[in-house]
Amino acid sequence: KDIQSQIDTRGISLNRVGIKNIDWPLKVYDQTNGFQNTVANISLSVALNHDIKGTHMSRFVEVLNNIDILNPQIILSILSSIQTKLDAESSFFECKFPYFIWKESPVSKNISPLKIEAMILGEKNRDETEIIIGVVVPVQTLCPCSKAISSVGAHNQRANVKILVKTKKKIWFEHLAAIAEMSASSPVYSLLKREDEKYVTEAAYNTPKFVEDVARDAALLLEKEDGLKCYRVEVESHESIHNHEAFAWVEKALS
Amino acid sequence: KDIQSQIDTRGISLNRVGIKNIDWPLKVYDQTNGFQNTVANISLSVALNHDIKGTHMSRFVEVLNNIDILNPQIILSILSSIQTKLDAESSFFECKFPYFIWKESPVSKNISPLKIEAMILGEKNRDETEIIIGVVVPVQTLCPCSKAISSVGAHNQRANVKILVKTKKKIWFEHLAAIAEMSASSPVYSLLKREDEKYVTEAAYNTPKFVEDVARDAALLLEKEDGLKCYRVEVESHESIHNHEAFAWVEKALS
Amino acid sequence: KDIQSQIDTRGISLNRVGIKNIDWPLKVYDQTNGFQNTVANISLSVALNHDIKGTHMSRFVEVLNNIDILNPQIILSILSSIQTKLDAESSFFECKFPYFIWKESPVSKNISPLKIEAMILGEKNRDETEIIIGVVVPVQTLCPCSKAISSVGAHNQRANVKILVKTKKKIWFEHLAAIAEMSASSPVYSLLKREDEKYVTEAAYNTPKFVEDVARDAALLLEKEDGLKCYRVEVESHESIHNHEAFAWVEKALS
Amino acid sequence: KDIQSQIDTRGISLNRVGIKNIDWPLKVYDQTNGFQNTVANISLSVALNHDIKGTHMSRFVEVLNNIDILNPQIILSILSSIQTKLDAESSFFECKFPYFIWKESPVSKNISPLKIEAMILGEKNRDETEIIIGVVVPVQTLCPCSKAISSVGAHNQRANVKILVKTKKKIWFEHLAAIAEMSASSPVYSLLKREDEKYVTEAAYNTPKFVEDVARDAALLLEKEDGLKCYRVEVESHESIHNHEAFAWVEKALS
Repeated sequence: KDIQSQIDTRGISLNRVGIKNIDWPLKVYDQTNGFQNTVANISLSVALNHDIKGTHMSRFVEVLNNIDILNPQIILSILSSIQTKLDAESSFFECKFPYFIWKESPVSKNISPLKIEAMILGEKNRDETEIIIGVVVPVQTLCPCSKAISSVGAHNQRANVKILVKTKKKIWFEHLAAIAEMSASSPVYSLLKREDEKYVTEAAYNTPKFVEDVARDAALLLEKEDGLKCYRVEVESHESIHNHEAFAWVEKALS
Repeated sequence: KDIQSQIDTRGISLNRVGIKNIDWPLKVYDQTNGFQNTVANISLSVALNHDIKGTHMSRFVEVLNNIDILNPQIILSILSSIQTKLDAESSFFECKFPYFIWKESPVSKNISPLKIEAMILGEKNRDETEIIIGVVVPVQTLCPCSKAISSVGAHNQRANVKILVKTKKKIWFEHLAAIAEMSASSPVYSLLKREDEKYVTEAAYNTPKFVEDVARDAALLLEKEDGLKCYRVEVESHESIHNHEAFAWVEKALS
Repeated sequence: KDIQSQIDTRGISLNRVGIKNIDWPLKVYDQTNGFQNTVANISLSVALNHDIKGTHMSRFVEVLNNIDILNPQIILSILSSIQTKLDAESSFFECKFPYFIWKESPVSKNISPLKIEAMILGEKNRDETEIIIGVVVPVQTLCPCSKAISSVGAHNQRANVKILVKTKKKIWFEHLAAIAEMSASSPVYSLLKREDEKYVTEAAYNTPKFVEDVARDAALLLEKEDGLKCYRVEVESHESIHNHEAFAWVEKALS
Repeated sequence: KDIQSQIDTRGISLNRVGIKNIDWPLKVYDQTNGFQNTVANISLSVALNHDIKGTHMSRFVEVLNNIDILNPQIILSILSSIQTKLDAESSFFECKFPYFIWKESPVSKNISPLKIEAMILGEKNRDETEIIIGVVVPVQTLCPCSKAISSVGAHNQRANVKILVKTKKKIWFEHLAAIAEMSASSPVYSLLKREDEKYVTEAAYNTPKFVEDVARDAALLLEKEDGLKCYRVEVESHESIHNHEAFAWVEKALS
């Protein structure tokens, strides 16, 4: 009795059916070291035709079971395998994972890893494949208004910059993270000695940015990338003078 | 020095600028009791023209400051106030909050409150306003495949059904919650005595549903609603035999 | 067949058995307005003797079902009901909920609600009852080291101050929140106009505090409270120059 | 100006001062493969004497910066380094991380990784060091009461079993996970084919367990371990017929 393969008569196609929130150990490409090991949180799904009762969920896990490293070819192959194994027109792969960038502190030149979140979203509709890659990067923002009106100091805070891009070109997570950091008041670091802390404090004070500024400056940098036509930038700032977040986003031809 | 009102020359309009994750005490409409008190998590935002440097974030909070109860007129008035105060073409209001439905257990008829999550999303573009309301309802699903292949028992688990609808008609959260519950293997309850637990266990066993079934059955019920043309149903099941979720969603003309 | 009441022969007493993460609409005492409505996240439990197989979990929910407002007498009554209904030597009640304090901004005197988290923990062992009350309050901290070494500015950020106290005296959440705020570089507010933002920025700059300072200053204020012998202060700061938190805690005779 | 090293006159010692929620790429020991790569969430702290104003937080990160693999010697060395670098009587190390166990499905013998959470907590007071290791393991529980009173079926659900042990002996995460799984109605798996799903469904139905049973059975197994005198078992079950959790815990000489 294969319940899932029975005919369904309700006449309702489903946009997506699959599994989500499955964690998996993987290697991902790393600009400096070739690859790095991480633990990815993954979703796999398909579109389901109106006349089929259900999906064989275990086949998604079988597809994962053969994967060691994520790279563009592997993602194409995952999407095709799912399409074939589940006899579906469209297949979807989404994953996000902690990714480490070894950063040098600005003055003492101490190197330590900074965790960002990285993500890869793939979709195959018949023969058409699209891949979106993205990062969420912690940065510092310092409020231009607070600086302008105050005789001393200016409120500042940690903020997150999320950048998503759709492109056929290879783009490193490190490159997107650099765009996020260049658009903020200052990057953040895991390890800062006194001379670094002085540098970062003054740099942020001298580069005040609203969330609106960070979003626009990141968008400007993305506009200058060759072959990049579709992107989204989201900035969310954990305001240090409030108990809520300020946010801004801009999107171009992505969804 | 009004930094925010300065001219911006970067030429980049922002889709949204605003505040998010601000909690606020509110009353919301309740089908049985007129209204109930809750604590809402709110986001308010506007679209920002390319030539303006920033938004005056404090004005969003001023708009909230005058609100006691959420109802359709109030939401329209919030959206208009924001548009006017921030001189914006488009304004956005999003909120979600715990909402309680007093449910009677199936046999002993004990009444206890069940928490669902409710949400209201409003958007005004020039003179055009759209409101989406939604619920996330905990239910039980029991696997048809597990039941069919096993000599005894069947794996079952808690699942969430999210329903979003766009409509001009008034729809109660209770009504959407009932659609979610009718589509599942069984509703869940805060208080069940022995006779109720027997009833719920057997009812679920006799009504096996995949996440696909729940999504389709809820969609069928929504299709029968007068004046309801746009909806989305998402089902997510915390599989009791796995450490991951199964999910399905179907959307019609919503986004 | 009452499975739960069967004799257990494994010889293992359980410290706690009960329910947790049940949300419930409640009123709580409010210093200004008499009471306020909130939604509490609750846990109820008992110690289980080695010779009883299980607890009747539905009885916990029955106890909740009769509650409208939380106050000291009600909590004692909950603890006694649980003890009796479940025939247990020890009973436990824990709840936390969003709580709003209407705060006046420092210069423009605008009033808006600030959400804090409040909690009540009760425990009854035979005839002995103890109640701990607590708050988690968002504040701003500004780094003394960053200020001292930098020619301009100083990094600052949102931080949380958690205060727990055990006392027979009545203590308002508002009073504990005020202790948290007085110990920080500045309080935070939901609504700040320009003149308020200038005030808060400068006040924080002029009151630099490490997490260590906030913990100690809050402890000093608690030491001055009559009849207060047992407390705990935890401070956690979302460092704006790092992607991690700094923290400090001090405890006296609480656990 | 070394602010942190100044004399403090408030007379209040702090139980803990440090950093938390810093993510770090690490190797951890693995019973089958020697080691596995993971991403750990770490906290490092010290006790702070009453007469010192503050801790040098960057030194914690410097200690982490030299670590590649976690093992007992490395943890001792971390604790000693912190003690020395920060001139503290007591030092603390806490980390938790996703850990994968390659499990064979019960009938088809397919192998796939199951994510558990693992943790290591270390503490050094002068010359005395203690290490606690722990796991949080997803399992399935099936309700004995529901089975006994219902003519068909029984509600079941995913549950988490947390086990912490303090010991001088080496204990594998795999061993603690096995104790958690043996105490439940059934283990859970990432990949189950039809014949496996039948097996797991029937096995759970034939092994009904309350959270109380799981806690006691795990405690019994821990009691049989040589040289293990201190442990804690926590069980939390995501009841499929409710929107809340049932829980039980038992502790012996751990805290």
